[in-house]
Amino acid sequence: MESLNSPLLDSAVAELSKLPGIGRKTALRLALHLLRQEKETAFNLGNSIINMRQNIRYCKRCHNISESEICPFCNDSRRDQHTVCVVENVKDVLTIESTHEHKGLYHVLGGLISPLDGVSPSDIEIDSLVKRVKEEEITEIILALSPTMEGDTTNFYIYRKLSGLPVKITMLARGVAIGNELEYTDELTLGRSILNRTLFTDTFHE
Amino acid sequence: MESLNSPLLDSAVAELSKLPGIGRKTALRLALHLLRQEKETAFNLGNSIINMRQNIRYCKRCHNISESEICPFCNDSRRDQHTVCVVENVKDVLTIESTHEHKGLYHVLGGLISPLDGVSPSDIEIDSLVKRVKEEEITEIILALSPTMEGDTTNFYIYRKLSGLPVKITMLARGVAIGNELEYTDELTLGRSILNRTLFTDTFHE
Repeated sequence: MESLNSPLLDSAVAELSKLPGIGRKTALRLALHLLRQEKETAFNLGNSIINMRQNIRYCKRCHNISESEICPFCNDSRRDQHTVCVVENVKDVLTIESTHEHKGLYHVLGGLISPLDGVSPSDIEIDSLVKRVKEEEITEIILALSPTMEGDTTNFYIYRKLSGLPVKITMLARGVAIGNELEYTDELTLGRSILNRTLFTDTFHE
Repeated sequence: MESLNSPLLDSAVAELSKLPGIGRKTALRLALHLLRQEKETAFNLGNSIINMRQNIRYCKRCHNISESEICPFCNDSRRDQHTVCVVENVKDVLTIESTHEHKGLYHVLGGLISPLDGVSPSDIEIDSLVKRVKEEEITEIILALSPTMEGDTTNFYIYRKLSGLPVKITMLARGVAIGNELEYTDELTLGRSILNRTLFTDTFHE
């Protein structure tokens, strides 16, 4: 691509195109858009990115993002301090929160065990989870990892690490997704949902 | 979407999602990506955006973006100072430059006349173009606007404004695009390319 003879624009385009999913053409479009806006728009964007990266850290307890040592979830006494939902990453916290069905705390692993990608158990926050179970009054661990090979491997590893400790270990129900046509459900999921069929009356939640 | 209980993250997501084509989900993905990178990555991005918006202005002569009063194109004595290519916007300068066929200067209109969108001739840089033609030693104006209704309207308006002045007014050739199958060329373009057919020997450029 040609240059517009402006090192300042080139620099902004180069930085923008480092973002995932943003190529040089899109980066140029975004930069030219920012040039057309009020100065405040560009300043607010730039400063919000800098401030965020400068001041956000990770909760010492659950490893979710936080602006203080302990995150608002862990600090919220209205939340059930005895139930901890284990998720892969920060985004999954949002996803679980959007269901409004989990009232407890979180534990963010920061990844899944994946020998192929070179991620071993010590690379993710499993030891700190075991420590929490030993030190806090946790009665239930909900494993909410993706139903993939890596998720299952990590589930099983955590299950083994926690065995012997007085904590109930549960995992997300797997089965036919609500709203999906049975015809298009994959055989593995359908097969498991037959094996793990539930009492019809159990579907009447309060 | 739920909040992650972080005003700093929320603010960055809100600012990022003001960019064209970036929704809240993408903005969140970008923000979380930046949180995972080295601090420098986010700082460089933020600062490059701020510096660009702070210091880039528009060339007093051709209205292209510039870091000084007169842009490097206008200041470049190796470029033909007598031929001015009129384009709609800054991006079109890049597009024309990428052909390496224009050795002259530019004039960026900053839009096209469009009564439907409320853009009148006084909203774009036409008067300053007429002024340049009168004051500078310009011998040719190349109209390089999009072959749309707005482009044609603007072409015709500029043509009338410049009539009587000693300047040659040319426009981009219109015809069958190189590499396109004749079968898929629209009738209007094909019809015009028959009317404006050129001597076969004229296609042998030096």
